[in-house]
Amino acid sequence: MPLRCSTGLKPRRTVIWIIHREVGSMSYLTHLECPKCGKTYDADKPQTLCGCGSPLLARYDLAAIARAVKRDQLKGRVASLWRFRELLPVGDDRDVVTLGEGMTPMLACPRLGQAVGLPKLYIKDEGLNPTGTFKARGAAVGVSKARELGIRTVAMPTAGNAGGAWAAYAAKAGLNMYVVMPIDAPDLAKKECIAAGAVTYLVKGLISDAGKIIGQAARLHGWFDASTLKEPYRIEGKKTMGLEIAEQFEWDLPDAILYPTGGGVGIIGIYKALQEMQAIGWIKEGVRWPKLISVQAEGCSPIVRAYREGKEASDFYSGARTLAAGIRVPKALGDFLVLEAIRRTGGTAIAVTDEEILKAVRLVARTEGMLICPEGAAAVAALPHLVKQGALNAGERVVVLNTGSGLKYPELIAVDLPVLEKDAELEVAAAGERTGDAGSE
Amino acid sequence: MPLRCSTGLKPRRTVIWIIHREVGSMSYLTHLECPKCGKTYDADKPQTLCGCGSPLLARYDLAAIARAVKRDQLKGRVASLWRFRELLPVGDDRDVVTLGEGMTPMLACPRLGQAVGLPKLYIKDEGLNPTGTFKARGAAVGVSKARELGIRTVAMPTAGNAGGAWAAYAAKAGLNMYVVMPIDAPDLAKKECIAAGAVTYLVKGLISDAGKIIGQAARLHGWFDASTLKEPYRIEGKKTMGLEIAEQFEWDLPDAILYPTGGGVGIIGIYKALQEMQAIGWIKEGVRWPKLISVQAEGCSPIVRAYREGKEASDFYSGARTLAAGIRVPKALGDFLVLEAIRRTGGTAIAVTDEEILKAVRLVARTEGMLICPEGAAAVAALPHLVKQGALNAGERVVVLNTGSGLKYPELIAVDLPVLEKDAELEVAAAGERTGDAGSE
Repeated sequence: MPLRCSTGLKPRRTVIWIIHREVGSMSYLTHLECPKCGKTYDADKPQTLCGCGSPLLARYDLAAIARAVKRDQLKGRVASLWRFRELLPVGDDRDVVTLGEGMTPMLACPRLGQAVGLPKLYIKDEGLNPTGTFKARGAAVGVSKARELGIRTVAMPTAGNAGGAWAAYAAKAGLNMYVVMPIDAPDLAKKECIAAGAVTYLVKGLISDAGKIIGQAARLHGWFDASTLKEPYRIEGKKTMGLEIAEQFEWDLPDAILYPTGGGVGIIGIYKALQEMQAIGWIKEGVRWPKLISVQAEGCSPIVRAYREGKEASDFYSGARTLAAGIRVPKALGDFLVLEAIRRTGGTAIAVTDEEILKAVRLVARTEGMLICPEGAAAVAALPHLVKQGALNAGERVVVLNTGSGLKYPELIAVDLPVLEKDAELEVAAAGERTGDAGSE
Repeated sequence: MPLRCSTGLKPRRTVIWIIHREVGSMSYLTHLECPKCGKTYDADKPQTLCGCGSPLLARYDLAAIARAVKRDQLKGRVASLWRFRELLPVGDDRDVVTLGEGMTPMLACPRLGQAVGLPKLYIKDEGLNPTGTFKARGAAVGVSKARELGIRTVAMPTAGNAGGAWAAYAAKAGLNMYVVMPIDAPDLAKKECIAAGAVTYLVKGLISDAGKIIGQAARLHGWFDASTLKEPYRIEGKKTMGLEIAEQFEWDLPDAILYPTGGGVGIIGIYKALQEMQAIGWIKEGVRWPKLISVQAEGCSPIVRAYREGKEASDFYSGARTLAAGIRVPKALGDFLVLEAIRRTGGTAIAVTDEEILKAVRLVARTEGMLICPEGAAAVAALPHLVKQGALNAGERVVVLNTGSGLKYPELIAVDLPVLEKDAELEVAAAGERTGDAGSE
């Protein structure tokens, strides 16, 4: 396979700081590979699924990266996922489409940790990404690669946030974008698509119905179908969460990572990042990989069921129901990869109720000041159960991925406030009304 | 003045990466000073306004910082505003309250730049801060300092976003928080306060009425009144925008910075940052300071009026009206400092209409994929006027501060989408419906 490397190109001086600060650090992508049947594909052409139906994974010349980049060189680079330039699939800086995604904060959460029995608890806040969710990572890398491959029109079905993110990056890239989403998708995601100029439709049905319409139109009109995991590069964006966690822990990995699992692209990506970092030699000698823990909602838990039953893939989960729309995925295309990631790292899979999710949103806001999304809250809600089960213990450093900002879910918080006259006097509130009483949740 | 430096303290190992990566780099705060009458105040005690009525400014031992920190040392530090640890007023790391604020991206905007006649246009996207706006900067530093000073209860009036930010940081810090806001404040800000556990009230009136109620209650109950510019440290948080702009331009400053101006704390802070960086010697030899340009709404433009009339302070602007609530401030306490910053840097002040603001929101979303807030859009809307006036020219590197995420203003985008049946076929959209046609705005 030829090494993709664009050393002959002059990076544009005016944007270079935004992309990366060390000239010459380009992609080491070599090819695409099927994790099921092993077949390889040319990464210089648009690709979707393997002939065998499996998603494809991007492969890099890891030995060359090991020679070229020492982990400490990353320190001075731009505070976005493009700091991991060599491990991303875009060859030419001029195709990089960025809105500042990635390098989200890793926040120590001692008060919340106290409440759930895990004093060394951290939340990585993906809500600080462009468009307010971790979908921006996949969209940034997916759209950049689409531009590099000469794709002019991207089409995708979406439950909401992914469509908003892809519409934003397509606009920035100057690509045409078609989106179809269920009629009951969240308003804010519809608005993001409209604002970014995507041609947007609603469908009287589910995301699977939207997927069929997009698939057919893409074949008919020659658009690129960027459905989850049919498109091979958004996983490369998502894997940067794993790279960042390692760097933020100074290459001494945490003991566990909790990931709210719908399509599962993030957990697949983090597992891929662990494999790549290990091969490159960035992870400290003798450091154990974190347990990867999949969290789902009780009303839609196909991965949990398959994990418990010892299956290698999940069955379609009928009657899926949860308020956390991002993890309402009855059957993920990459389910076998999710299950592999969980089992090979000694992790587990667990489901929580919608009521627990809502309580966790409130608990995190009151103890740590973060308004998190219901999917992230599901992972928080799982913590006390995991401690009780013995899957986590109090001495462990545990990372929860909050996949999006609570600002995108305004319907979860009711407004019912006392109204004062202009000349009112305030009294000291009773203890129960105060911010400080985290214990009361 | 004694140098505030807490070298005897052990930073907690578990959180150190999040705060800063170089141990020993603490605050060089010396005292507070009145910019009007020159009187100095002890920074070890809670302070509000000067006896003469002016806001107070924090002063540092800049000569000592110049000896201690070379600008290139900043490179490897944490990607938040705490990278500028020495120039912030918090002495002890254990009092730092962080949600990952600051180090927001500086995004080259070539397509938008083309549309407005400024090819070297950048937007610094403050929407990627915690709580979705630049208010997080002031709240992070203000709350941290309040904690260090032993303050247990903070109270503030707010138009919305500042209250949401302070409530979040107070929750993280474990402080009590009281908020009063006008009954017509945006729903999302109310929800942020409620979620974070702040004791929150609405008032049948304006923010000035809220301010009176808070002021009286604070005196009565011994709460700290954290109203804008009465509290001396939020400006220190806001000034980090100026420090970051300089670092992101590799200490070769841009030619102009546009700032949507309500209370004006940000522009005062950026001007203060320029003075401090100059004194420390971080700015490259011979580099001119950027023109600081204040943008207001035509329905509320006290600074523009005072600038045009050559006055040193503004008059109260009666009947203030604009959809951009963040710049609906009829009389700012720091108006004289804003006018000084504009005049000393060769900047200007300009007003735009609400209609122009709405058009700019759409233009930025379609050309650059960013959903910006109406205040940031006001600054974008000013660009073609400034080019026409000759205040900006096509060769200049111009930075617009987008002060918040458009996700906090969902009411600005209407949803009216075509609905498909499950078996629908999509057609290729007419050119006018596409993302790519930025020119049509």
